Amino acid sequence: MSRESYWTADPSELLRVREGFRLADVDPRSHPGFDGDKAAGVRALAEGAHIFAELQEQLFANSRMGDDERRVLIVLQALDTAGKGGIVKHVMGSVDPQGVHLTAFKKPTPEELEHDFLWRIRKEVPGPGMIGVFDRSHYEDVLIGKVRELAPPEEIERRYGAINSFEAELAASGIAIMKVMLHISPDEQKARLQARLDRRKKHWKFNPADIDERLLGPKYMEAFQTAFDRTATPNAPWYVIPADRKWYARLAVQHLLIEALEAMQLEWPVADYDVAEQKARLAAS
Amino acid sequence: MSRESYWTADPSELLRVREGFRLADVDPRSHPGFDGDKAAGVRALAEGAHIFAELQEQLFANSRMGDDERRVLIVLQALDTAGKGGIVKHVMGSVDPQGVHLTAFKKPTPEELEHDFLWRIRKEVPGPGMIGVFDRSHYEDVLIGKVRELAPPEEIERRYGAINSFEAELAASGIAIMKVMLHISPDEQKARLQARLDRRKKHWKFNPADIDERLLGPKYMEAFQTAFDRTATPNAPWYVIPADRKWYARLAVQHLLIEALEAMQLEWPVADYDVAEQKARLAAS
Repeated sequence: MSRESYWTADPSELLRVREGFRLADVDPRSHPGFDGDKAAGVRALAEGAHIFAELQEQLFANSRMGDDERRVLIVLQALDTAGKGGIVKHVMGSVDPQGVHLTAFKKPTPEELEHDFLWRIRKEVPGPGMIGVFDRSHYEDVLIGKVRELAPPEEIERRYGAINSFEAELAASGIAIMKVMLHISPDEQKARLQARLDRRKKHWKFNPADIDERLLGPKYMEAFQTAFDRTATPNAPWYVIPADRKWYARLAVQHLLIEALEAMQLEWPVADYDVAEQKARLAAS
Repeated sequence: MSRESYWTADPSELLRVREGFRLADVDPRSHPGFDGDKAAGVRALAEGAHIFAELQEQLFANSRMGDDERRVLIVLQALDTAGKGGIVKHVMGSVDPQGVHLTAFKKPTPEELEHDFLWRIRKEVPGPGMIGVFDRSHYEDVLIGKVRELAPPEEIERRYGAINSFEAELAASGIAIMKVMLHISPDEQKARLQARLDRRKKHWKFNPADIDERLLGPKYMEAFQTAFDRTATPNAPWYVIPADRKWYARLAVQHLLIEALEAMQLEWPVADYDVAEQKARLAAS
């Protein structure tokens, strides 16, 4: 277990997609591994933020001094309103922005559509020392791509294998990959869309197409299940995070990042210069 | 003046480089427009963070709903240790990371050197609704470029004009540009380098070349003065911010951003769909 004090059981064990995993068995309102309420969850997130920030700085430091190529990539996938944006803001917002490479993948541009679906993804792979965050990703091409039949079935089939090869290549180059589905219930989604329609300041976050997508919810759940079945690998695991409670989803994602960094057994890098000599030079300057 | 409560005079007026500006006249320990101490400055930064975050969200919202092309670009230049990283972390860290496009320009790569100096810069110009932050920039090419004679004098000369044309083009496309020099004293720089050498956890932030650069401080001040004289334009102004007190520099940069956003007279965008109709659709879904 990690150095966080507030888990009753390791959430990454509880949330990880393993052989036989069924999405339908996950309760979006649950909070596995955490016994407290929202207030306790918010306090825990603040505690974890300090742990996360120090680990992130160590990761970054080792890439700057020394040749440490290691880095992290977290992929966020979810239905609308599940809270990807909140994860980015409240989890990633606690570490140094210089060490974070965030990419929000939108509907592909005409230029992107001329290339293989991984073309635009490869350009955003984080560099050494960075934490890369994909807000949507290559999984769109087997989620909306499948549900909306944006490509022929044989092309969708091909993509699962292409994704596994791609992610194996990333893992081999020193990237700790984790893939997260934020799992929200239809009722909670309805309430969040309602809130966007009710509040003048939130109107810009709503799009009529959100309701069209909502009606396809069951098909998306099937597509997610297939993606888990086909692309959950030891080096690029999937985690399904109950997301009806925003505070829990944030805390769980923060934990996955802390755990990935702790597994690297990071230390502060050793100076590659003579400290005493430089102190003397500085004193004379 | 802006909606911040804590300024005694508008710092952007006090800090802006105008005709006849002399860098040598600026006291790096001063805190123009703010009467309080560090604790008051830290409190003010937290107050301003809320104002800044709401304005940033409005900017972002208008680019997403509607065709608002407006955006902001802030260029940060400074000697080592002056606090660019702290600005990024403590000022930009308070707004939604999705709305921030941060680029740290390092020593140019061989590929970048094969192109004009603005080539790599153009690729990082922020898109509509974004706040772009350049941690170093095209000004390196007339600062270290001039001091270290990395290009012939006539090429350095050419660049001032090229920069002015480039920035005029950006301004015409709806980008509010501000250029900031964080001004640190030699003594404060010495203390900050010393701290990096004294603390094991900070060793990675030090590089022996930092002392070589430090010895060229007076030449850099000359190069900055020339850059101000040649590239301070009404649409892309320079601000020199006293930076011996980190809290003041952060507060002043936050103010410049708030002021730029307030000048846009942003409102929440009006829904481009029929709200009542969508509420009915949602209720039925």
